[in-house]
Amino acid sequence: MFKYDKNASTAYCLGAQATFYLLDTAPTLCQRIYISPKQKRDETFSRLESIAKASHIPFITNNERIFKDLSGKDNVMVIGEFTKQESALDPNKNHVVLVNPSNMGNLGTIMRSCVGFGIHDLAIITPASDPFDPKVVRASMGAIFHLRFKRFSSFEEYQNAYMGRLFYPFMLQTETLLPNVKKKDSPFSLVFGNEATGLPESFLEIGEPVKIPQTNLVDSLNLDNAVSIALYEFLCR
Amino acid sequence: MFKYDKNASTAYCLGAQATFYLLDTAPTLCQRIYISPKQKRDETFSRLESIAKASHIPFITNNERIFKDLSGKDNVMVIGEFTKQESALDPNKNHVVLVNPSNMGNLGTIMRSCVGFGIHDLAIITPASDPFDPKVVRASMGAIFHLRFKRFSSFEEYQNAYMGRLFYPFMLQTETLLPNVKKKDSPFSLVFGNEATGLPESFLEIGEPVKIPQTNLVDSLNLDNAVSIALYEFLCR
Repeated sequence: MFKYDKNASTAYCLGAQATFYLLDTAPTLCQRIYISPKQKRDETFSRLESIAKASHIPFITNNERIFKDLSGKDNVMVIGEFTKQESALDPNKNHVVLVNPSNMGNLGTIMRSCVGFGIHDLAIITPASDPFDPKVVRASMGAIFHLRFKRFSSFEEYQNAYMGRLFYPFMLQTETLLPNVKKKDSPFSLVFGNEATGLPESFLEIGEPVKIPQTNLVDSLNLDNAVSIALYEFLCR
Repeated sequence: MFKYDKNASTAYCLGAQATFYLLDTAPTLCQRIYISPKQKRDETFSRLESIAKASHIPFITNNERIFKDLSGKDNVMVIGEFTKQESALDPNKNHVVLVNPSNMGNLGTIMRSCVGFGIHDLAIITPASDPFDPKVVRASMGAIFHLRFKRFSSFEEYQNAYMGRLFYPFMLQTETLLPNVKKKDSPFSLVFGNEATGLPESFLEIGEPVKIPQTNLVDSLNLDNAVSIALYEFLCR
C-alpha cells in the first residue's frame, strides 16, 4: 500500500500540471513519474515520457495501485515522486513566517500567494502542518517548487538565524492599521499566527505589530486571506 | 437519514458558535436546535436552552442520528436548522459579484471576508456552489447570517437589476493594475470569475476591468485571496 509518510525522504505531487511544475523547476528532485494505466497516450503522455527519458527519471506506467492509494476520489492520471528538501532562506530577501499553521489547504494556498507576489522564502514554526503532505503540495499548485522553506522549532530560533531585519507581526491586539504602517527598505519578515489562536501577546514586543482593518462582525479573516492582503500591501502599494 | 437537500426549504449550521451567530443575527430563521446526547450540560447548553425557550424554538436533545449523518468526522455537538432565505441586494450599497463560483470552501470564506470588510451584499451568478450547503455555511463562520445574497441566472440579469453603478471585473487580461485603479464614489460592484476559468473575455467591455499585480510563476491567485485583496484595496485604502 502506498501512503504518504511524513518521515519518508520522498513526497508526491498529484496531477499532470503539478508534475510539470516539478520537472520545470526542480527536475533533479524528481525520483519517479507514475502514469495511470488509464491515461491516454496523448500529448501530455509524450511530453512526460520524453522529459523522463532525457532526465533519466523512471517512468512507470503499470502501477494502478499508487493511484488508488494516493489520489482518493480525484481523477488523477499522473503522480510525480520527489525528494523532500528544505533549504536555508536567503537572508537578504523578504520572508513570510507562519507560526504553527495547522490547515494544510491554507499552507498550500499561502505558498501560491507568496510566489504570486514574488516572495520565495517561507519560514514555518513548528508544530505545524507538514509542508510536504500531498494536500499542501496540491493546494500550492506547483508554487512549493519555487520556494525556499525551512522549519524552525521556535520563533526565537528563526529570529536568531535571521537578525537585522524588520519583523511585522500581524495581530488584532495592536492599533497600527496596515494602510498606515511605515514600510522601510531593509528586508522584512511578515509574521502570522495559527488559524484559531493568532499570535501570542508576546509578539506585541517584536518589531512593528500590524492589524488589518476589519469589522467586529467576524472573529478574524481567514489566514491565507490575511497573508495575501499583507503581501499585496507590502509588495504592490 | 438526515441529509442536506439543496431543494429543501431549510439548511443546517454545524457547531455551537455558528448556531449562536444564527440566533444572534437571524433568530426568526432558526427552526430547530439539535444538541448531541453527548454534549455536557454546561454553560453552552444552558445558554442555548434559554434562547430556545425565549424564542419558542424546538430544542431537541435526543437525536443522535442527525449528528452521525451531518457532521461526518467532525466533533459537532450543536446543529442549528434554519430557513433558507435569499433577499434582494441593497441598490445603494457596494456589492461583491461571483460569477460561477464552484468551490464551497471558497464561497464560505468569501462571505466571511465580505462581512469583515463591511460588505453585506453578495450576488451569485449560477451555475454555482449552493450557498446553503453545510460546507459553505461552515466556512463562512457565521458570516452568511450577516449577508443579503441572491442568485441570478446570468450576469446580465444582475446588471439589469442594479443599474447606475460602477462595475470592476477582476481579470488577468487587462493592463489596469489594482493599485492604480480610479475608485469613484458611487456604489460599486467587484466582479470575480470562476476559480479555474476566471471571467470570460466579454467582461473586458464591462465597466473598469482590473488586474491584481502578480508574477507569472503562478497561474492566478486563489479566488478567495483575490476577493480579499480587492476588498482591502477598495474599502481600506
